Amino acid sequence: MDSSVSTKTMANAIRALTMDSVQKAKSGHPGMPMGMADIATALWKDHLRHNPNNPQWIGRDRFLLSNGHGSMLQYALLHLSGYDVSLEDLKNFRQLHSKTPGHPEVGVTPGVETTTGPLGQGIANAVGFALAEKMLASEFNREGYDIIDNYTYAFLGDGCLMEGISHEACSLAGVWKLNKLIALYDDNGISIDGKIQYWFADDTRKRFESYGWNVIGPIDGHDFQAISNAIAQAKKSDKPTIIDCRTVIGFGSPNKQGTNKVHGEALGDAEIAITRDAIGWKYGPFEIPAQVYEAWDSRAAGDMVENAWNQLFESYSKAYPDLAAELTRRLKGDLPANWDDVVMEAVVKAATDEESMATRKASQMALNEYAPHLPELVGGSADLTSSNLTAWKDVKPLRADDMLGRHINYGVREFAMAAIMNGIALYGGFIPYGATFLTFSDYEKNALRMAALMKLRTIFVFTHDSIGVGEDGPTHQPIEQISSLRLIPNMDVWRPADTVETLVAWASAIERKDGPSSLIFSRQNLPYVYREEINADDIAKGGYVLQEAPEGPDTAQVTLLATGSEVPLAAEARKLLIAENIKARLVSMPSTTVFDRQPHSYRRSVLRDAPIIAIEAGSTGLWWKYVKGNGTVIGIDEFGASAPAAELFKLYGFTPEKVVEVVKNKISSNNPLYKGE
Amino acid sequence: MDSSVSTKTMANAIRALTMDSVQKAKSGHPGMPMGMADIATALWKDHLRHNPNNPQWIGRDRFLLSNGHGSMLQYALLHLSGYDVSLEDLKNFRQLHSKTPGHPEVGVTPGVETTTGPLGQGIANAVGFALAEKMLASEFNREGYDIIDNYTYAFLGDGCLMEGISHEACSLAGVWKLNKLIALYDDNGISIDGKIQYWFADDTRKRFESYGWNVIGPIDGHDFQAISNAIAQAKKSDKPTIIDCRTVIGFGSPNKQGTNKVHGEALGDAEIAITRDAIGWKYGPFEIPAQVYEAWDSRAAGDMVENAWNQLFESYSKAYPDLAAELTRRLKGDLPANWDDVVMEAVVKAATDEESMATRKASQMALNEYAPHLPELVGGSADLTSSNLTAWKDVKPLRADDMLGRHINYGVREFAMAAIMNGIALYGGFIPYGATFLTFSDYEKNALRMAALMKLRTIFVFTHDSIGVGEDGPTHQPIEQISSLRLIPNMDVWRPADTVETLVAWASAIERKDGPSSLIFSRQNLPYVYREEINADDIAKGGYVLQEAPEGPDTAQVTLLATGSEVPLAAEARKLLIAENIKARLVSMPSTTVFDRQPHSYRRSVLRDAPIIAIEAGSTGLWWKYVKGNGTVIGIDEFGASAPAAELFKLYGFTPEKVVEVVKNKISSNNPLYKGE
Repeated sequence: MDSSVSTKTMANAIRALTMDSVQKAKSGHPGMPMGMADIATALWKDHLRHNPNNPQWIGRDRFLLSNGHGSMLQYALLHLSGYDVSLEDLKNFRQLHSKTPGHPEVGVTPGVETTTGPLGQGIANAVGFALAEKMLASEFNREGYDIIDNYTYAFLGDGCLMEGISHEACSLAGVWKLNKLIALYDDNGISIDGKIQYWFADDTRKRFESYGWNVIGPIDGHDFQAISNAIAQAKKSDKPTIIDCRTVIGFGSPNKQGTNKVHGEALGDAEIAITRDAIGWKYGPFEIPAQVYEAWDSRAAGDMVENAWNQLFESYSKAYPDLAAELTRRLKGDLPANWDDVVMEAVVKAATDEESMATRKASQMALNEYAPHLPELVGGSADLTSSNLTAWKDVKPLRADDMLGRHINYGVREFAMAAIMNGIALYGGFIPYGATFLTFSDYEKNALRMAALMKLRTIFVFTHDSIGVGEDGPTHQPIEQISSLRLIPNMDVWRPADTVETLVAWASAIERKDGPSSLIFSRQNLPYVYREEINADDIAKGGYVLQEAPEGPDTAQVTLLATGSEVPLAAEARKLLIAENIKARLVSMPSTTVFDRQPHSYRRSVLRDAPIIAIEAGSTGLWWKYVKGNGTVIGIDEFGASAPAAELFKLYGFTPEKVVEVVKNKISSNNPLYKGE
Repeated sequence: MDSSVSTKTMANAIRALTMDSVQKAKSGHPGMPMGMADIATALWKDHLRHNPNNPQWIGRDRFLLSNGHGSMLQYALLHLSGYDVSLEDLKNFRQLHSKTPGHPEVGVTPGVETTTGPLGQGIANAVGFALAEKMLASEFNREGYDIIDNYTYAFLGDGCLMEGISHEACSLAGVWKLNKLIALYDDNGISIDGKIQYWFADDTRKRFESYGWNVIGPIDGHDFQAISNAIAQAKKSDKPTIIDCRTVIGFGSPNKQGTNKVHGEALGDAEIAITRDAIGWKYGPFEIPAQVYEAWDSRAAGDMVENAWNQLFESYSKAYPDLAAELTRRLKGDLPANWDDVVMEAVVKAATDEESMATRKASQMALNEYAPHLPELVGGSADLTSSNLTAWKDVKPLRADDMLGRHINYGVREFAMAAIMNGIALYGGFIPYGATFLTFSDYEKNALRMAALMKLRTIFVFTHDSIGVGEDGPTHQPIEQISSLRLIPNMDVWRPADTVETLVAWASAIERKDGPSSLIFSRQNLPYVYREEINADDIAKGGYVLQEAPEGPDTAQVTLLATGSEVPLAAEARKLLIAENIKARLVSMPSTTVFDRQPHSYRRSVLRDAPIIAIEAGSTGLWWKYVKGNGTVIGIDEFGASAPAAELFKLYGFTPEKVVEVVKNKISSNNPLYKGE
């Protein structure tokens, strides 16, 4: 580094690049990067351990921007310190297919650890990162070999702190004593609506003390040394730390700094010119002098720390070859070598046993079969462990003083649970799952979406999946939730009907490397459904013929299409129909999202041409895609009620007799093209 | 009241009824009611101002059970104090069509103020109640006439306090200095997973101090006098109060109290018998001695306080006849007499002006037209006022020291915003609306559902409704959200295309008395679409023929079906089609949910038999219901990208040319029954 360049100048390089990029894009958020430039400089220059030449180096400190609208801060840092983010990339800020999208996106930009923008989730991700680090360190580090050893730094703003998820996540970080989590709070007193005092008057210091955090500040967020000292102090704490940095939003802009005018739009050429003067930045648009680049360049230092780590890992590999191999496997996200055998054995056993049980119970059975072979599995529940049945046999709970526990009590914090799971998955080495009641998927909705957008291997478990919930009533009975989950792009949704389908669903979710899965299970007991063969491969396709028409598919007069608890119901209806000489077949569709990805020929072979009657104890709307013109949908589009489940199924028309009645009406209507309704 | 009956005995009556009802239902939550029985007795005996003979009396204190699983506490209280909740009703606890569902449901049980169960939302509702009280009092009370003057009491447990929404809502209660909000915290140290210390170690006292609350306790939650004194003290505070009551969950059950075993299942006959002994309750199942009833009976006292209030209101009506009439109208939820004229005038003006603008801008225009005539309208935004455009001309912001402000800065707190709006609507006298970006409807999802379940007149405004968001990228671009909202039972969803449709959508939402509405608006400018007549009545039906086939409906070869920003797109495509002699008609469908309620004949007259091409820049799945066998859907089922909006619409195939291409393929395929896909 060139020590003749002042840290103020280094920070001003961020400000200049921010102003220029936002101005060129005519869109973006200059206020935060200009306000946090000094904080970022202190962190990146004095503390952050990273290697721009290898953004994937496992030993790196993690840097997360929870206030993701300030993306230009991160892009400027990545560019200046030597990552593969060019000046051209900055000039393409917010343009199609650029490396510099409006908000930071993991997988798009080297050095970006998580996708942020939806406020509060970045800090919750960071809690997941810090937890994963502590868990992985507990499992793999050995005396003299701190192989896993990094800090997680999160920048956040008022918005993140107002969001409820920050309460949930930071409370857990306190309980878990995540001392290597360091949050830097951009305390600028301004949000989009203006001066925050009228809507955000929390004593944030006190609030974080109440969570058991180490609280530093307020400090001057434009004083390099004060910031650097605070971070040094934070690194020594035995608690997570938040540093309250008093800043001026849009620092440097004479007419706009300290106001909401600088939050979310370009400064304008005139204001940029006088800002350049005000901060003493003498260079043109997108012009960074060589000595400033030199001062920022972290590549040589990065190579050095990574090399040192590589040497440490090499001797670790000699001292603990099994551990090293296992850690390598885990970080690559590969499953154990015997995985396929484990699954097949479990499936064959279940198909042989033909046990009737609630699918939440079948899910626990799946965990008991799989988890002992999958040390990367980390389960949990939002305070419903005994209802969600997420704890496998002999699993230990995770505790602050036992980070080898692999079942997490998240408390009643669904949203943070999901976002923390996303953080764990992003860190690597683990496959996280976490559960709540299906209705309360609503509480964590956007974190599910973020998992799908980031293509994460996180598994969301939802039990109590319909009016089958019974007495707890409409607040606890999902209606629209299964369909809502299916609508999230890249979310796989499974609603298995029995033990065999449940085992396959779990296996698919565990094997999937390019996105999350939601596994949906019944509260109530379900009868085992007869299957002619152990068709695990077909189940894995998301939809398959469970029971063919008695005289072959070409003779079928109707196809019953069902999921989960409605599969045994449809099987009963099919029996009654056949007894009346109506040739019915039964398709089980545990995952429409997976089925939709199958080749056209396979899908046609399953759906065929007979009228389709879709049956699911939930919203009807999405089923018309399969039913199209000539069938109908049996579902429920209103809220449920508080009563024993069996009475509700009857009340809402989920009986074999009712299905038979609908089928008979449909096929007697003799109307090939079903028009309107 | 019979003073010979001890308060302990009064509380034990609650415990006995709880044990018996849960046992009979073989389902329910005895732990909380048995633990909070003493707290409830102190509040109801010494403080709560209410009249069992008139649960709707506007002067009553409000009692909310945020920990709604303890519903038997409320049912026992209502029964004992003289509401229309009989012993028979208690025996029907959790049974079909009973007055005593699993969780408290407003509208089902007299005396229940809000539906609870989804944790944390009850306390957020309570913040809405207390805010509405303060706003209404500011507006209508006059010297010597404290017409509006009640406390809002909320019971809550650890679960509510862990949920993020409690952070959001309680932070706002502090900012607003809602001194008549009193929360009683059931601090029993147990949640479903067991002893909470491992997942909930917050210093809750300190946390609430950080919000600017008055914090009392910890006190002994089984000491009647201590509780009563604490409440008396709370009533004098100039801040909202939380009273930390240390309790034993399932108090009285020798073998189960103080453990999670008593949380959510019946105690069992044996344990109930020894619990009866332990607490000294000598009566049989569902047996309450007359003197205990007498001690609890609040009817005479209730009549007295209500009569006093009625007298006060009578003289108020003489002193301020206009105010009294207006208050009466507002509390009945009637709209002003000139309302229909206001709407029609605005619609005619818009149809005459034919202005092109973003529908969010049209929404602000609607507010400017309507709000001056609707003093009951209370708007707001989750810190996006200048983007959502929710502030009408000259509206004042609401502040702690100005409760006459009618625009609320909720801060970045979407979930609390929605739940607080629900509370305001439940209190009465106001029609609340609140806004955020459509993507972040995810953050408030379950509160939207609760509004629909409770049939509330709340209006949820969502702007930035598609990839039209542009540069902010996929985190901010809704894809599945419009459809997700449509799936919520009883939620009306509007996505208008222009100024005229926007005015009608707003009017419909304001007029609707049996459920909430979501209003969805574009960020980007939309061209005004030519309409042959000012068809406000047709628009109000949710879907209508905007442009008929040139030679009449019977000649149509294709129907384009579109919403919002895709209506002008479809209109362009229709022009191109007609130029190529393809007879196309255009149906605008601003609200599928409203359209679905229209008579079959109307729906058929709109949809007709020509192949339907549905066009919406969002998930395709729900459109197949209308398209059925012979059309197709143009939509987007993947995540968006960060780029200028115009480029994205082109990239994802939303151009008139693309629509023309799809139509031509479809009608040339000459396949009346579209099979599979």
